[in-house]
Amino acid sequence: MSAPLAGSHLLPQINTRAVPEALLDALRQRFAGQFSTALVVREQHGRDESSFSLPPPAAVVFAHSTQDVADAVKLAAQFKVPVIPFGIGSSLEGHLLAVQGGISLDVSRMDQVLSINAEDLTVTVQPGVTRKALNEAVKSTGLFFPIDPGADATLGGMAATRASGTNAVRYGTMRDNVLALEVVTAQGEVIRTGTRAKKSSAGYDLTRLMVGSEGTLGVITEVTVKLYPLPEAVMAATCSFDSLADAVNTTILIIQLGIPIARCELLDGTTIRMVNQHSNLSLHEGAMLLMEFHGSPASVQEQVDTVQAIAADQGGQTFEWAKTPEERTRLWTARHNAYFAGIQSRPGCKAITTDTCVPISHLADALLDSVLEAQHSGLTYFLVGHVGDGNFHMGYLIDPDKPEERELAETLNQQLVRRALALGGTCTGEHGIGLHKMGFLVEETGAGAVAMMRAIKQALDPDNIMNPGKIFLL
Amino acid sequence: MSAPLAGSHLLPQINTRAVPEALLDALRQRFAGQFSTALVVREQHGRDESSFSLPPPAAVVFAHSTQDVADAVKLAAQFKVPVIPFGIGSSLEGHLLAVQGGISLDVSRMDQVLSINAEDLTVTVQPGVTRKALNEAVKSTGLFFPIDPGADATLGGMAATRASGTNAVRYGTMRDNVLALEVVTAQGEVIRTGTRAKKSSAGYDLTRLMVGSEGTLGVITEVTVKLYPLPEAVMAATCSFDSLADAVNTTILIIQLGIPIARCELLDGTTIRMVNQHSNLSLHEGAMLLMEFHGSPASVQEQVDTVQAIAADQGGQTFEWAKTPEERTRLWTARHNAYFAGIQSRPGCKAITTDTCVPISHLADALLDSVLEAQHSGLTYFLVGHVGDGNFHMGYLIDPDKPEERELAETLNQQLVRRALALGGTCTGEHGIGLHKMGFLVEETGAGAVAMMRAIKQALDPDNIMNPGKIFLL
Repeated sequence: MSAPLAGSHLLPQINTRAVPEALLDALRQRFAGQFSTALVVREQHGRDESSFSLPPPAAVVFAHSTQDVADAVKLAAQFKVPVIPFGIGSSLEGHLLAVQGGISLDVSRMDQVLSINAEDLTVTVQPGVTRKALNEAVKSTGLFFPIDPGADATLGGMAATRASGTNAVRYGTMRDNVLALEVVTAQGEVIRTGTRAKKSSAGYDLTRLMVGSEGTLGVITEVTVKLYPLPEAVMAATCSFDSLADAVNTTILIIQLGIPIARCELLDGTTIRMVNQHSNLSLHEGAMLLMEFHGSPASVQEQVDTVQAIAADQGGQTFEWAKTPEERTRLWTARHNAYFAGIQSRPGCKAITTDTCVPISHLADALLDSVLEAQHSGLTYFLVGHVGDGNFHMGYLIDPDKPEERELAETLNQQLVRRALALGGTCTGEHGIGLHKMGFLVEETGAGAVAMMRAIKQALDPDNIMNPGKIFLL
Repeated sequence: MSAPLAGSHLLPQINTRAVPEALLDALRQRFAGQFSTALVVREQHGRDESSFSLPPPAAVVFAHSTQDVADAVKLAAQFKVPVIPFGIGSSLEGHLLAVQGGISLDVSRMDQVLSINAEDLTVTVQPGVTRKALNEAVKSTGLFFPIDPGADATLGGMAATRASGTNAVRYGTMRDNVLALEVVTAQGEVIRTGTRAKKSSAGYDLTRLMVGSEGTLGVITEVTVKLYPLPEAVMAATCSFDSLADAVNTTILIIQLGIPIARCELLDGTTIRMVNQHSNLSLHEGAMLLMEFHGSPASVQEQVDTVQAIAADQGGQTFEWAKTPEERTRLWTARHNAYFAGIQSRPGCKAITTDTCVPISHLADALLDSVLEAQHSGLTYFLVGHVGDGNFHMGYLIDPDKPEERELAETLNQQLVRRALALGGTCTGEHGIGLHKMGFLVEETGAGAVAMMRAIKQALDPDNIMNPGKIFLL
C-alpha cells in the first residue's frame, strides 16, 4: 500500500505484531467455518468509512455467541495478538484498522434481540443487531429506539463509539441510553455491568466506561438500552434561510428556550446541491434547517408555533412540511444520504470528516469561520450538522492520490478543532478518537487525563491486545 | 466506642493505619488555621447520617482552593495516609467514616459559583456549593438546577455519590447532569475531565467514572452541571389511595405511558403520621402520591388530565392541589423532612435506610412484600419513595444499644435487596455503596465486575489512600 499515512501529522506509526501460525491453527480448529484468512474477507474487515488504508488483519473470526467471543479472545491473549471487534464497518476514524496487525472479531452474526421488556421500556440485544433491525423488532410494542447515527450501525458499535446522531438533541446519546452491558474482558472473562433499573449508585460506572471505549477495554457482547413510546404526534419541516448565520442563530435560540425539539439539522447550499443530485430532490439550495417535533398533538403544535416565530424573526422562509410518514422518511433519508451524496459528487474521492461539538452559544463562532476557511481553501466540502447539540460535520473531499489535498484538509481540520477547543468544545461529538484524533485528545483534555486513561487501559489490558493503537498510544 | 459494628455481616474490619506526627506537623505548617486536630472537629468529620460510629479521623484540613486540596493529598500520599473528602456530611452509607484512619479533607469552604453560562444552560461551581446555594445563585437567570436529594448536599458530594432524588424521574441523576469535572488525583495532580459541550466521544468517560466513585479515585474540586429553564407552569398535587398497591400501580402506569412527570413520590400511612407530627400538617394518613408537573401550561394540563384519569381508575381520591409556590414549598419540605420525621418519631433511634431501585414493572413486587415483612417484624419503619424511578427507601428505626434490633433490620434489608436483585434491580439507586453495601455489590454485579473496579482503583491509587475501605476492600 503506497504511503497510506502521508500528509497526516496525527497518525501513529504502524507497528504490526506477528500473528503466529500456532494461533491461526488454534482458531481454525476452534472456529472451523467461522474462521477465514481469505484476502477478500480480511480486506473487508480492514477498512471503515475513514480515508485511511492499511494492511488488513491476519484473519477474521465470526462469533455466533458470547462463548465464541470469549474463546477467541482467550486464544489471542495466549499469543498476545491484537483483537479488533467488528460490527458493520461504519465507523469514521479508523477504529477498525489493524494498525498493529492481529485478528478481526466480527460480531455481526450475533444479531438476536434477546428480550423486549416493553413494560419497562428496555430491550436487550446482541451486539450485531443494527438500529433498523432493532426498531423493526420492537415496532409492535408501540416503542422505539431513537438513537440514529445515520448509518445502519450495530448496537455494539454504537455503544463502543458513544454514538448519537439526529435524535440526540431530545433523547441523548448512547451514553444516556445504555443501561447495562455484557462484556468479554481482555482476559476472556465474561462480566456484566449495570442492571435494568433506571438508575444506580452501585460502584464505579463500568457501563459508561465501556461506552465509548472503542473496543480497547473489551468486547461488548450484549447491550441493554432504553426504549421510548412512539410519539403520539410527529411533525417534520424544512426551513430555508438567506444565510448560514441566520439558520445557526435560529438553532441557538430554539435550544436556549428549552424547546424539546426532536431533530434540528443543518445543511448548507453546497451540500443541498449534492443531496438534490444524489437523491433526485429539488430542495432550495440555500442554508436549511431540517426539524422534527415529537409529543402530544398540543405540545407539538406549541413547539412548532414557537419555532416558526423564532425562524421568521431570523429571516427564515415559510416552513415546508413533510406531512406523511413517507414524506418524512424521504426527507430524513435525504439528510442521511448527505455523506454519500458528498462522496459521490467527486468520483474517486475520500472524505476527511470533522466532528467538533461546542457549547450552543458558540455554535455560530465555531461553524461560520470554519465554512469560510473551507471555501477559501478551494477544496470541495460538504456541511451537515446536528446543530441542536452544537455538533456539526464538515467533509473535505480529497483525491487520495494527491498528498497535498490531504495535507490541506488536515490543516483545515486542525484549525477547526483548535477553534472548537478554544470555545470550550470537544474534538469529537460522536465519531470517537480512533486513529485520527489522538493528538486532539491530548490538546482537549490535557496530558493528565490521558495518562489516567492509559493507566486504566494498562490495568485492564496489560498486554494491550484489545484494539491497540486507538484513542492513545501506550 | 462499644462494639460499633456488632450485628452487621457486611461491614469490613477496621484497619486503622498510623498517621505519623511528621505528617500532622507538615499539614499544620502548610495549613495553619485551616488545620485542626481538636476532638470536636474530628468527631464532626467522623460521622455521617448512617447508623455507624467509628473513631474519628486524626485531623481535618479545610481546603480553600484546588491548590490546597492538591497539597494536602500530596502530603498524605508521601506518608501513605488515607484522605477522606468531606462536603457537608449528609451521606447515608458511612462514606465519611475513617474506617482505616487518616485525615478528613473538608471542601465545604470551596463554595464559590465560578461561572454561570446561562446562554449554554451550564454552571461551574466549587465542590462545597450546596444545591440550594446554587439555585439561589442562578435564580436571576430564569434557570434552575433540578437534582434534589432532600438534604442540602454539596455538589461535590452529590457528584461523588451519583445522587439523584425527587426530580430525577424527569431530569435524570448526577450521572446525566455533570458535564465536566476538575479532579485532584491520588498523586495530587490536577486533571480535567469533559468539556462544556453537550456531548462528546473523546476517549474514556472519566467524568462518569468519577461520578459515583465515592472519593475513592480522587477529590472533586470543580463541577460543571447542566441547568434547565424554569418551567413556565408548575402544578403539584397529592392523591391518597386506599392501598399501597393502588398507589404503586398508578405510578407504574404513569411511567409506562411516558408521561414526563417531574416528581412522583410515595409515602405510606405510617410515614405520613410521622410527617404530620413533625411538620404540623394534617395530611390524610394513608398511602399517598405526591406529584409535580412541569412544562408549558397546555402540556402541564395534558399531563394532569392523563394522570388524574389513571389515578381515578386505580381508586385514587381527588387530587389536592398545592396552588401557590408557598404551598408547594411546604408540601415538598414535608416530604423532604420524612427522614427526620421518622428519626424523631423514636427518640434516640438510628435509621438503617434501604435504597433499592428496580425496573418499573417490578415496583409492586419489590415494594409491597418488603413493607409486609417490615410490618411483621415489629420494628418501627418509615417508607418514602422516588417511585417514578422504581426507587424507594425503607428506614428501619433501631435502638443503637440493642444489637438484636440492628440484626433484625439488617436481615430485613438483606431480604429486600435480594428481592430487588432477583427482579433485575440494584441494591442502591442513589445513596452509594459506602461501608454498608459491599456484599450486595458483589451479589449484584458479580465478582468479575468488582474485580474490574478493583483493578481501576489499584491503577489510579496504588497506595490506596483515597477514602479506602469503601465500595470494596482491596
